[in-house]
Amino acid sequence: MKIALDAMGGDFAPQAAVDGAVLAAAQLAGKAQIVLIGQPDAVRPLLAQHGAAAEDLILVPASQIIDMGEHPAKAYQQKQDSSIAVGYRMLASGEVEAFCSAGNTGAMLVGAMFSVKPVPGVLRPAIANFVPKLHGGMGIMLDVGANAECKPEMLEQFGELGSLYARYVLGIAEPKVGLMNLGEEEGKGTANSQAAHQLLKVNPHLRFIGNIEGRDLFNDKADVVVCDGFTGNVLLKMAESVYDIMADKGIGMGDPFFAHFNYESIGGSPILGINDNAIIGHGVSTPTAICNMLLQGYQMASAGIADQIKATFKS
Amino acid sequence: MKIALDAMGGDFAPQAAVDGAVLAAAQLAGKAQIVLIGQPDAVRPLLAQHGAAAEDLILVPASQIIDMGEHPAKAYQQKQDSSIAVGYRMLASGEVEAFCSAGNTGAMLVGAMFSVKPVPGVLRPAIANFVPKLHGGMGIMLDVGANAECKPEMLEQFGELGSLYARYVLGIAEPKVGLMNLGEEEGKGTANSQAAHQLLKVNPHLRFIGNIEGRDLFNDKADVVVCDGFTGNVLLKMAESVYDIMADKGIGMGDPFFAHFNYESIGGSPILGINDNAIIGHGVSTPTAICNMLLQGYQMASAGIADQIKATFKS
Repeated sequence: MKIALDAMGGDFAPQAAVDGAVLAAAQLAGKAQIVLIGQPDAVRPLLAQHGAAAEDLILVPASQIIDMGEHPAKAYQQKQDSSIAVGYRMLASGEVEAFCSAGNTGAMLVGAMFSVKPVPGVLRPAIANFVPKLHGGMGIMLDVGANAECKPEMLEQFGELGSLYARYVLGIAEPKVGLMNLGEEEGKGTANSQAAHQLLKVNPHLRFIGNIEGRDLFNDKADVVVCDGFTGNVLLKMAESVYDIMADKGIGMGDPFFAHFNYESIGGSPILGINDNAIIGHGVSTPTAICNMLLQGYQMASAGIADQIKATFKS
Repeated sequence: MKIALDAMGGDFAPQAAVDGAVLAAAQLAGKAQIVLIGQPDAVRPLLAQHGAAAEDLILVPASQIIDMGEHPAKAYQQKQDSSIAVGYRMLASGEVEAFCSAGNTGAMLVGAMFSVKPVPGVLRPAIANFVPKLHGGMGIMLDVGANAECKPEMLEQFGELGSLYARYVLGIAEPKVGLMNLGEEEGKGTANSQAAHQLLKVNPHLRFIGNIEGRDLFNDKADVVVCDGFTGNVLLKMAESVYDIMADKGIGMGDPFFAHFNYESIGGSPILGINDNAIIGHGVSTPTAICNMLLQGYQMASAGIADQIKATFKS
C-alpha cells in the first residue's frame, strides 16, 4: 500500500513534511510506503539528512507549488505539475491509496471535486474533523467548512458519511448521530435544520439520537455530529483557539482530554464523499501532525472507507 | 432606581434568587433598590433568614410560576399573575428600571416582545452574551439564540445594538464590530453573511473591521461579534461546556481569563432592541450569578441603554 504526501504543503514545508513522513514511515514499515511528492532539489537533501531512515520513502517529482494565498480553482488548473495536482492524479489513477496535504485547503477541495470526484449519489462531499470525548475515544463532526450553506438532504448525508467513518475507521459499532442545533426539541432551529431532523429521524441507515447542543460536543450523546459547514467551521476554529490559549498559558497540558484538542494528535481532516481517500492538514502542521495525518491516511485506506461509502451510496 | 428580580425563576429558586438579591442589595445600597417578585409565602421566610440585610428589599406578590418546561407563549398568556408577567408589567409601566430572571428563557423572550415590545425600527431584538478577552476586558456577542435565522439587515442591526451596548455599558469608546464567518475574505460564508458584510461595511454608525473567524472570538480583533442566533447559541453553549469541564477537572481556575468563562461572573444575557432593560439568567444560576445579573441590570439602567437604542433607531 502507498500513502502519498504533498512534500511542499504547509507553512513549514518541505522540512516538516519530510520529517513527518520519515516518522510515519518508521511506524508503517512492512505495511505501507510513503510517497513524497514535490521538488526533488528541495526534498532530496532533507531526505539525505535522515540517512537510512529515509531509504524506503519514494520521491515523485512535481515542479510547481500552489501557495497558501493563491486562488484555489485558478491555481489548481494552471499548475498541473504542482504537488497537489500530481498527488490527486496519482490518487485517481490508483497509484496511491491515500493523499495527504497541509497545503492550500481550497486547492485540496478543488482537486477532490475535479480529479477524484464525488461519489455518485453524494450531493456534496464534506470535510470532517475529530472531536475528543470527555470519557475517552473520538467523535467525528462534519461538515467543518466545505459547504457554508447546507440543504436538509446534505445534512442527512453528512450523518451517513460520518456514520460510515465512525464505524469503519474509528471502530464504533453503532455510531450515534446527533444534529447540532440550538435546542434539543425537534421543532428547534432553522427551517433547514428542522427539515434535516425529520430526514435523519426516518433514515434506516443510521442511529439518530436527535438534536444536540453546543454543550454536548464533548460528551457521549453523539459519536457523529452533523452540522452545516459554517457552524462547524466556527466551532472548530474556536475550539482550536481555546487549546492554543491553554497551551500558551501552560494550562491543562497534562490532561488527556485537553491533549486531544491539539490538532497535531489527529493531523488532518478527511474529505468524505469522494471516490478516494484525501486528507487536508493544518497549515501550521508540525512533523508530528504530518506523521499522524499519514497514519490516518493509512487507516482510511486499510478500512477501505471510500469503497464503503461508494457501496452505500450506490444502492 | 429599582431593579426587579423574578424570585421564582431558576433551578434553585427561590433560595438562590433571594440570596443573590440580598448580595446585590448590599452592593447597590444608596444607589438602587431590589424588587423581588414572587410568592410571598415562599419568599418571606427566606428574606427573614437574612435579617437586617434584607430590610431594604421590596417584595411584590405574584401568585403563579412559569415552570422551566412550559410552553413559553402559552404559559405567558395564561399565567398573567406569574412572576415573569408581573415583572414585565412593572418594567413596561416604569415602576422598575430593569427586570432580571433566571426562569423560562422562552417566556422571558415572549414577555419582551409582547409586553415591553421591540424598539420601533428594530427588526428583531437579540439576546447578547459576553465574551472574555484574552488581554482583559469583555466583548459582546449577539445574537445567541433569539433568532435562529437572520436576514442580512438583522445582522447589520445586531452590529449597531452591540456597538451601543459596548459604548454605553462596557465603556468602549469606539467598539470594533466583526462578523463571525468561516473565513476572513469578504466573499466568504453564506449568502446572508456575504450580504450582511456589505451592509456593515457601509454603515456609518459603526466601526466594522470585517469578517472574523471562530479563533478570533477571544482576541482583540472585535469588541462586538455579530452572528446569527444559531451559530451564537452553539458557540456559547460549547464555550460554557469547556469551562464546566475545566472546573470539573480543576484546571485553569486560577487564571483570570478562564475565570471569566464562568457564566456566574456576568450573570445574564441582556435582550437588546426592546424598549426597556431585561436580562435572562442561566437556569442553574447561583446566588453569585443572580447578584451579578442584578448589578448588570443596574449598569444597563444607569447607562440608559434602552433609551440610547431608541434614540438611535428613531432617526
